[in-house]
Amino acid sequence: MATRTIGIGLLGAGVVGGGVARTIFEKGKSLLYASGASIELRNVLVRDLHKSRGIDSLSDLLTTNPQDVLENPEVDVVVEVLGGQVPAKDYIFQAISNGKHVVTANKDVMAKYGPEILEAAHAKQVRVLFEATVAGGTPIIAPLQRDLSANEVIAVNGIINGTTNYILTRMARDGIDFLDALAEAQGLGYAEPDPTNDVEGIDATYKLAILASVAFQTPVFDSNVYCEGITKLTSRDFVYAAELGYTIKLIAVARKDVEGIQARVHPAFISSDTMIAKVDGVLNAIEIETDLAGRVLFHGQGAGAMPTTSSILADVIDCSRGILDGKDSSSIGFLRRNTQIRPIMDLETKYYIRMNVVERPGVLAEITRVLGDLEISIASVIQKEVDFTTLQAEIVLISNRAKESAIQQAITELAELEAVAEIGTMVRVED
Amino acid sequence: MATRTIGIGLLGAGVVGGGVARTIFEKGKSLLYASGASIELRNVLVRDLHKSRGIDSLSDLLTTNPQDVLENPEVDVVVEVLGGQVPAKDYIFQAISNGKHVVTANKDVMAKYGPEILEAAHAKQVRVLFEATVAGGTPIIAPLQRDLSANEVIAVNGIINGTTNYILTRMARDGIDFLDALAEAQGLGYAEPDPTNDVEGIDATYKLAILASVAFQTPVFDSNVYCEGITKLTSRDFVYAAELGYTIKLIAVARKDVEGIQARVHPAFISSDTMIAKVDGVLNAIEIETDLAGRVLFHGQGAGAMPTTSSILADVIDCSRGILDGKDSSSIGFLRRNTQIRPIMDLETKYYIRMNVVERPGVLAEITRVLGDLEISIASVIQKEVDFTTLQAEIVLISNRAKESAIQQAITELAELEAVAEIGTMVRVED
Repeated sequence: MATRTIGIGLLGAGVVGGGVARTIFEKGKSLLYASGASIELRNVLVRDLHKSRGIDSLSDLLTTNPQDVLENPEVDVVVEVLGGQVPAKDYIFQAISNGKHVVTANKDVMAKYGPEILEAAHAKQVRVLFEATVAGGTPIIAPLQRDLSANEVIAVNGIINGTTNYILTRMARDGIDFLDALAEAQGLGYAEPDPTNDVEGIDATYKLAILASVAFQTPVFDSNVYCEGITKLTSRDFVYAAELGYTIKLIAVARKDVEGIQARVHPAFISSDTMIAKVDGVLNAIEIETDLAGRVLFHGQGAGAMPTTSSILADVIDCSRGILDGKDSSSIGFLRRNTQIRPIMDLETKYYIRMNVVERPGVLAEITRVLGDLEISIASVIQKEVDFTTLQAEIVLISNRAKESAIQQAITELAELEAVAEIGTMVRVED
Repeated sequence: MATRTIGIGLLGAGVVGGGVARTIFEKGKSLLYASGASIELRNVLVRDLHKSRGIDSLSDLLTTNPQDVLENPEVDVVVEVLGGQVPAKDYIFQAISNGKHVVTANKDVMAKYGPEILEAAHAKQVRVLFEATVAGGTPIIAPLQRDLSANEVIAVNGIINGTTNYILTRMARDGIDFLDALAEAQGLGYAEPDPTNDVEGIDATYKLAILASVAFQTPVFDSNVYCEGITKLTSRDFVYAAELGYTIKLIAVARKDVEGIQARVHPAFISSDTMIAKVDGVLNAIEIETDLAGRVLFHGQGAGAMPTTSSILADVIDCSRGILDGKDSSSIGFLRRNTQIRPIMDLETKYYIRMNVVERPGVLAEITRVLGDLEISIASVIQKEVDFTTLQAEIVLISNRAKESAIQQAITELAELEAVAEIGTMVRVED
């Protein structure tokens, strides 16, 4: 029996694209076994034909014309690893409309246009797979769609940005400040020269939007995700967190209840004895809370050429198996429901607040009165000794469960108290 | 368009079978969405028709005749949750030969007859899925077959027996003895009245055989797995482990190198800062070490009716999607290769040895001479003060990497030394 060939068109040959191309060349035989088909690279869209890419067999396949890939009748699956919205989004829609399956690593595009893309794919009876958009080499999209398919997902909770997790790990372990940790991460290549997307939480909102969409089978866009970065955390917050039995992590949480879905990315105090608290350095972890399986955690590399290649090729292999089986469009989209998205003000959790106050009798009473009037009760308070140059004391408190709207109001009111010199940090506390 | 119905025949309605039946009844609509088909329970094999099972809709479906399930033309998928080898194995082969897909939770049967069963399934163009055989509700089989399909697996390393992990966690945290921890586990229903299968590591060898077979795509049987239980560990070993920066876990490891596969289940010292060391209580975790994705860890419930139901129904849904797509036998078996299995004597790792010695000068020199002659060097030694009633001292040492055969020989020779009163425990140390 002749072996069927599956033709791959690659959009982009940067770090990830280069990894995909090299692996397809090097692993021909094992990809054949895994997929049942001979997986062959047809052509590769690049910006510069003459840049050296260290892969000899690649040079004949390079093109600067996207149509060479998108319209090539011998391309069955288009792998998009350009990143960014323009022109990647248009290429994805074109590939679909030309009847090609698409495997993409593009979180920006999937977070903004995922539902539209999946709808277009459904109409054209092709598949769009995007395992590589979240958590690099760590499987999470397919496990949600396949392995946990009998479950209702209650919550998704994870660490899905390696850059910030590296910075927070260094701050927690070695007491260094944010800017020093950032500079170090940049030196190691873990953070970009412009780190905004990572440290402000934006990258994580893309990934959480995708995860939540798949988990809850309803469109969740990045604009639906509350977003707060890690730039306001100080080394003092890490000291208090440790004292109180917590670790500070940038978490991405999406939780569903009868009133809707709440999706948020922000720093949080996490109990130090949970698995999520133990995720260190650039690693990622995602915990899925379900009705049947309980909590299932997936932990691994969140970025890097080879881990991302692993996820992309898993999708390519899955696609190829489907093509051989005569399977057309997968019925697994995330368009089934249209669940309400709830604002952050509806959140109810515990809160950590650190503030500097004037050292005089009655200050703590004033603070607790403000909180009490807003029905916020205090679970624990630490008052640190006076700074003799400023005559200020530091108060750290953790509230019992309270409404975000009440806490926000409390912070406004506390800041107006004469006795309060400065509200330092507010961090949500996850149980 | 009429909805296709997928008929399920259930073999067994015990704790897990009851969970499967109840969930099929309760989740009709969401299973329909997930699978694309209406999933209907046709009939259920039980031993006793009159036992109350707390599910009203079940009573009409019960039968004591296996042929009612195995020969029912309206059964597309047979779900086997009887456990044990007899008669489950025969029923599985019968179901296959009647052209039915099989979903099984039976680790005993899959560890002993997996390759044969998959071969039979291949010949009859049906699928046999067995996610529930390993780690309960934690996905691991399908991720190996799908999400990591582009990778070469280098090693599988996990905690896959919740009973022993509960016991070891209690021993480590609270300093209690094995028998007390076991009694407590039995009281909580985590250990069977006859705990042999769990505490002697046998249950874990079944699961590791299945995992290794899938990971390395070659038949590995339970009889190929070296097996050592946790019954010889004492509370003193946990004290020393903690002192030396380790946690003691019953690990299941299968590792492949150019010479073959080594598969083993035994207690091990694990560095306390690894994720595996942090897996507590009855939870399970499996780390897959690969060439592309690096290390990926899956963590979750290892047992229980609902988690196991989650895995079984994921397989049922996958099977149903395949039936709707006109997909027949999956090409994903574990029969591709025939890799050499290596004996435990070939292992090379570090070793912890605890022994009681007579307190007199020169004893440590005698011990190090025995080890040195066998080319075993010592990484660290702890000598504890004399017990004044027996006049014995306790020596604890950790070796550098050495051959298992050399260590076994050393233990024999050490035990013959006049100065050595007793070899207490030998535990392998994983890096």
